[in-house]
Amino acid sequence: MDEHGGMDHHVPTLPAWIAESVDFSRIFRDTEARIALAIRLARWNVDHASGGPFGAAIFDDDGRVVAVGVNRVEPLKSSLAHAEIVALAGAQQKLGRARLDEDGRRYTLASSSQPCCQCYGAIVWAGINELLVAARSEDTESLAGFDEGPLPADWMGELERRGIRVQRDLRREDARAVLAKYGARGGARY
Amino acid sequence: MDEHGGMDHHVPTLPAWIAESVDFSRIFRDTEARIALAIRLARWNVDHASGGPFGAAIFDDDGRVVAVGVNRVEPLKSSLAHAEIVALAGAQQKLGRARLDEDGRRYTLASSSQPCCQCYGAIVWAGINELLVAARSEDTESLAGFDEGPLPADWMGELERRGIRVQRDLRREDARAVLAKYGARGGARY
Repeated sequence: MDEHGGMDHHVPTLPAWIAESVDFSRIFRDTEARIALAIRLARWNVDHASGGPFGAAIFDDDGRVVAVGVNRVEPLKSSLAHAEIVALAGAQQKLGRARLDEDGRRYTLASSSQPCCQCYGAIVWAGINELLVAARSEDTESLAGFDEGPLPADWMGELERRGIRVQRDLRREDARAVLAKYGARGGARY
Repeated sequence: MDEHGGMDHHVPTLPAWIAESVDFSRIFRDTEARIALAIRLARWNVDHASGGPFGAAIFDDDGRVVAVGVNRVEPLKSSLAHAEIVALAGAQQKLGRARLDEDGRRYTLASSSQPCCQCYGAIVWAGINELLVAARSEDTESLAGFDEGPLPADWMGELERRGIRVQRDLRREDARAVLAKYGARGGARY
């Protein structure tokens, strides 16, 4: 942190368990495999008590993992550190550009829960072509106690019109189980 | 950047000219002074060609600057690095918490332009109590060529219902002049 309030992270954003839990050499060919990784990340984050019950992963069109994210709001003391934002920041840093798909490839973001208002807006600008969602916002709110914030009424249509395909309710029950586990331990804080 | 796609910023987020341009010891008592700083930040960012034509500043209820931000999308190669996000990240890091107003004080975010969909969502979670806006999104779109993204139809009401007071059209013409200057040089990229 510099004296002018700038971001100067020397804090590792991702928890240490990521390195031994995620197989970065694996090819995640289909939607099922991709959403399953996002949900596993959410579950691991709950099990390690390293943040809120949310996981996200970004894949290129070969199915390689570009970056992953988990909720790190409390450990990093940052309301920005939602799973999707952490994954997007990591992917942009890795690929060295602000729009992931400027290389002409297609990028998929898989998220264990429907993006909140912050992550929804971030997805619009990040160069993502496909969004995979497991739990719905109503699951996140009812099972884990989070507020998901205000979205455009036709939030899926707004993404589709910008070239971002949305699939939801993928392995929804698995994602709900993670949220319920977190909720049973007390639930939301941020 | 670590091998797992984590954010590990060793890049200074704010441009070097911030240190000599912003008087961090000054008290910005009223709305006029606060929005004027946000607009000056936007203008300086255009003049220094250090990012897009947007500036933001966060003040505590004494009128002290907690953090400032300017658009840094291109220099940082990050779609997250909008002026408001940079300011929020800086303020949270400086105060050491994810919700700025948890100390019972009130925090104001002044932005040279109406927040886009990404910054709009981020403001909801950051512990901001008041949002000051100069230019409207239609100004940003028509004068500088940016897409501002999808917002809830009643975006101001949604913030007000969450305890975030909104004032807009503050020094709007000054902010429009900055956007027009940027537009005259070619306009939007991100």
